[in-house]
Amino acid sequence: MTLVLLANGLLIMGMSVLMALLGLLFPDTRGLFMEASVITGFPGGLAVLALWNRPRDFSRLHSFLLTGTIWVTGATMGAVPLWLWQMMPVDAFFESMSGITTTGSTVLSGLDHMPHAILLWRAILQWLGGIGFIVAGIALLPILRVGGMQLFRTESSEKGDKEMATAARFAGTTLWVYAGLTLTCMVVYRLGGMSIFDAVVHAMTTLSTGGYSTSDASFGQFHSPGLEWAGTFFMLCGGLPFAWYMRVLSKGDIRSEQVRALMVLFAVSITLLTVWRVWTTGAPVEEALRQVAFNVVSVVTTTGFATVDYTEWGAFAAIAFLVLTALGGCTGSTSGGAKMMRWVIVLKLLRLRFLRVRMPHAVEVTRYNGRVVEADVMVGVMTFFVLYVITVFALAIVLDLYGLDMTTSFSGALTAVANVGPGIGGIIGPAGNFALLPEGAKWWLAFGMYAGRLEMMTVFVLFTRTFWREAV
Amino acid sequence: MTLVLLANGLLIMGMSVLMALLGLLFPDTRGLFMEASVITGFPGGLAVLALWNRPRDFSRLHSFLLTGTIWVTGATMGAVPLWLWQMMPVDAFFESMSGITTTGSTVLSGLDHMPHAILLWRAILQWLGGIGFIVAGIALLPILRVGGMQLFRTESSEKGDKEMATAARFAGTTLWVYAGLTLTCMVVYRLGGMSIFDAVVHAMTTLSTGGYSTSDASFGQFHSPGLEWAGTFFMLCGGLPFAWYMRVLSKGDIRSEQVRALMVLFAVSITLLTVWRVWTTGAPVEEALRQVAFNVVSVVTTTGFATVDYTEWGAFAAIAFLVLTALGGCTGSTSGGAKMMRWVIVLKLLRLRFLRVRMPHAVEVTRYNGRVVEADVMVGVMTFFVLYVITVFALAIVLDLYGLDMTTSFSGALTAVANVGPGIGGIIGPAGNFALLPEGAKWWLAFGMYAGRLEMMTVFVLFTRTFWREAV
Repeated sequence: MTLVLLANGLLIMGMSVLMALLGLLFPDTRGLFMEASVITGFPGGLAVLALWNRPRDFSRLHSFLLTGTIWVTGATMGAVPLWLWQMMPVDAFFESMSGITTTGSTVLSGLDHMPHAILLWRAILQWLGGIGFIVAGIALLPILRVGGMQLFRTESSEKGDKEMATAARFAGTTLWVYAGLTLTCMVVYRLGGMSIFDAVVHAMTTLSTGGYSTSDASFGQFHSPGLEWAGTFFMLCGGLPFAWYMRVLSKGDIRSEQVRALMVLFAVSITLLTVWRVWTTGAPVEEALRQVAFNVVSVVTTTGFATVDYTEWGAFAAIAFLVLTALGGCTGSTSGGAKMMRWVIVLKLLRLRFLRVRMPHAVEVTRYNGRVVEADVMVGVMTFFVLYVITVFALAIVLDLYGLDMTTSFSGALTAVANVGPGIGGIIGPAGNFALLPEGAKWWLAFGMYAGRLEMMTVFVLFTRTFWREAV
Repeated sequence: MTLVLLANGLLIMGMSVLMALLGLLFPDTRGLFMEASVITGFPGGLAVLALWNRPRDFSRLHSFLLTGTIWVTGATMGAVPLWLWQMMPVDAFFESMSGITTTGSTVLSGLDHMPHAILLWRAILQWLGGIGFIVAGIALLPILRVGGMQLFRTESSEKGDKEMATAARFAGTTLWVYAGLTLTCMVVYRLGGMSIFDAVVHAMTTLSTGGYSTSDASFGQFHSPGLEWAGTFFMLCGGLPFAWYMRVLSKGDIRSEQVRALMVLFAVSITLLTVWRVWTTGAPVEEALRQVAFNVVSVVTTTGFATVDYTEWGAFAAIAFLVLTALGGCTGSTSGGAKMMRWVIVLKLLRLRFLRVRMPHAVEVTRYNGRVVEADVMVGVMTFFVLYVITVFALAIVLDLYGLDMTTSFSGALTAVANVGPGIGGIIGPAGNFALLPEGAKWWLAFGMYAGRLEMMTVFVLFTRTFWREAV
């Protein structure tokens, strides 16, 4: 238990330091951030001091606890400055959880006139949440065998501590790729015409596929074709597997089944929707292509930036975007959703089942990126989909109980669990806002983001009694 | 190929005879049904004559072809009297496919003043479709290994022809149970106050879980609490596995995991919705319970009778009924949907995955009704769910392209694929009608019913090239 508590304590300490830095940087909200820094630093510091010299036991069940608690701690502490800044507790927690899970749904409006420190804090939450998820995807989920992620275990001969150490080293290197891409994006955004502040905020929320902006008009505020293409490119970068970058950089090996699948998906969906747009509205091809590409990439990578209200593009576009919301980017990226790896494996499995019809006794091995997909991985992937569907529908039913209409309930549940951001419909659509929802619905949506970010199983297992009997 | 064509020919002949009988019975539509009988009898008779003495080869791939073609043939021939009766071809085919798949969606209104022969013909289509599906579920699907149905193979030592013969004998006995229950239902309905004609029609559409009625007000036309309770009971009978009845009758053994699961589902959902009704409207408990029980059982068994417009019960009820639409009754019954057997297996699998978290190397065997669930069955069940979700969403997107709103598209796709009947919303809800949909949407919905009835895989495999290379 010690290590779990210590890690949470260290996270709180780190966030407290960041709050203090923001306090120093921005005079208009200095008092607020200093107060938040003290409030969080106190329990964080105490925990670190008390636990630092205690023996550090760590088991498999503890890694579930670690993953499960760290996002709740981050969201709670991240909410403190927002709460001190007069937000209601539920709104502050929703906004912070939406940030740290890189969902990007917001209850705030009037972003354009908001203190810079608050806007930057939201972006920092997303950026931290992004790197946190990449590390979890490389170092923790494969060991936890959640949702077929065991496919990405480093090497089968390495067990326990050693496997974890290798993964942690690997995750460390990935951090540099993430930081490098963010910096590049920042420079490009600045050159494209953004202010330095806008460039910093948007670069952080682009690479983390979070999607918080500095304006109610989201990315549409810039009215710049060049920036929109740049945004499209860097959102895509955030949705690619970070381990893949390292392989490309070190070995020049660009083969990856999920990267290819993502590209095919983009090619098909962007072409179809562009043709639909040009055909139904007679819009110029470049404009239609740019708007479609930006918003499709934004939704599929689960960023959630918007340049236009695409739900006004007609019923076909609305349901197309709803389906795109469920897909997700690549595993090992900052994206949410079901993710390409799982779709690829499911499609291979379907192909195999169709083949079985012809030859009932054929024995065929399924491979993913050259590795054999064991039955355990397949069932893990299938289990993910079942939990995904059940979670979304259960959440939609609960939201309904608060009196929300069906489109809002269903798309709200899906956008939360897939960590995308905007839903469909007038209330929570890309032009809307989550502020008007009932308080209870916000708590449930925050829970949905949390469960979705940790691929359901990691969270739900914490609610079983047998888990606690053994873990503590 | 011969046996496949011959079986289709025999079906057409049988339907032609039934049409002639209806022509004899009802003078007002005699010409119409005699004409239909001749039109269908001619090709049917020719096929039977030409093929009767040819050698009858039959392979595994042919059983796919048989299952795949027989429903299309039945729907096409069933549409002939409706088409002669001045219905548009698309409407006649939709109505007939909806009948033979026991879906029960209708494009007709003014049922109360319709010729009795037409109403009876719709009921006959559903009754035939019901027995056809029970036979397919016992004799064909287990051999085709579709959707985990191989769990119900009679005995592993029996192979090929012999297995088929045993299953066919078994299916023959089941027919008597089906007929006996229909007759009992008919008598009870008559004693409960229905006219003889109403009793005959409704008994046939109750046991087949089809849901065609003789009035636009569906079962609500009778305004009789007694009849509603009787209807609830016999719809439930139609949703139970017919093999289970035989086990109960011959051995007194009532144990069955899917029957128990269905009962638990009913207990929970009916209680919740009754409490919701009494609480939100202050309705008398008996009335609320009766209405909830009837409509929940109707939707879950995929019958689709309605006594009230439950979509006006508020957003919670609307989404609850949408979820119930997806569940389905038991395998080996006339119900559609995902079916209880699959839910039970998926829940067991989830339990197993949660257990794995605690003990990564535990080896545990999953059993269903005492039989070991092999990996092949598990993957088959999972594949079913994946195909189910993909089919519903793909169909919803297509319907959207015809300009339907999201609720209509999605609930329409689901109600078709799950073979339930009514959708959600003003157009195709329990008080509505499918007549107003665009022609293209009706063709697609008819295809959805067909694919759903044959559990997707059986139909989709007919669209693969490799299948045809080997089958013909």
